[in-house]
Amino acid sequence: MPIFEPPYYAVVFTSRREPADDGYAETADRMAELAAEQPGYLGMDSTRGPDGLGITVSYWRDEESITGWRRNAEHTLARERGRTDWYAEWAIHVAKVERAYQNRA
Amino acid sequence: MPIFEPPYYAVVFTSRREPADDGYAETADRMAELAAEQPGYLGMDSTRGPDGLGITVSYWRDEESITGWRRNAEHTLARERGRTDWYAEWAIHVAKVERAYQNRA
Repeated sequence: MPIFEPPYYAVVFTSRREPADDGYAETADRMAELAAEQPGYLGMDSTRGPDGLGITVSYWRDEESITGWRRNAEHTLARERGRTDWYAEWAIHVAKVERAYQNRA
Repeated sequence: MPIFEPPYYAVVFTSRREPADDGYAETADRMAELAAEQPGYLGMDSTRGPDGLGITVSYWRDEESITGWRRNAEHTLARERGRTDWYAEWAIHVAKVERAYQNRA
């Protein structure tokens, strides 16, 4: 549940899973690991409820780091699998964080 | 899983629940209902995983509408209950949405 010194970027990925797994969990773990290695990656929060609705928020230093991650070849292939096989529905918001606060450091 | 015409605002509320319910579910439902009545409210996505990690993203037309909702008396009381009774940990990001896209209209 990380926060950072604004300004930075949040990418909010909302999705509804199809019931079949078919390699999803493994790829999701790999993408979390790979994202964390990218320049400008700050952190991530991710959860999915019993109804299949998931929200993943990744935090990035600037727009360039988001673009770099989007162009990553392995991530591009994973997104294509996601669109065809894993997600019934998805949406992405790219937003510039202006304020962040929390109840513990 | 709504998107809107940028620019607008996303408020990302991340939280980890304490195990006891003690009125939480009822208040959460009431806050979702009340938020939807506020000027400038656009929509919401909310989910919580089996580990207790929840992410709620609410979408607002502008900063004024976020301030108005923060000052709502019933919401202020609910936040105080949340801080003392319901959440082990929480964080808030207020971010200006620059781009939004999805796989269906």
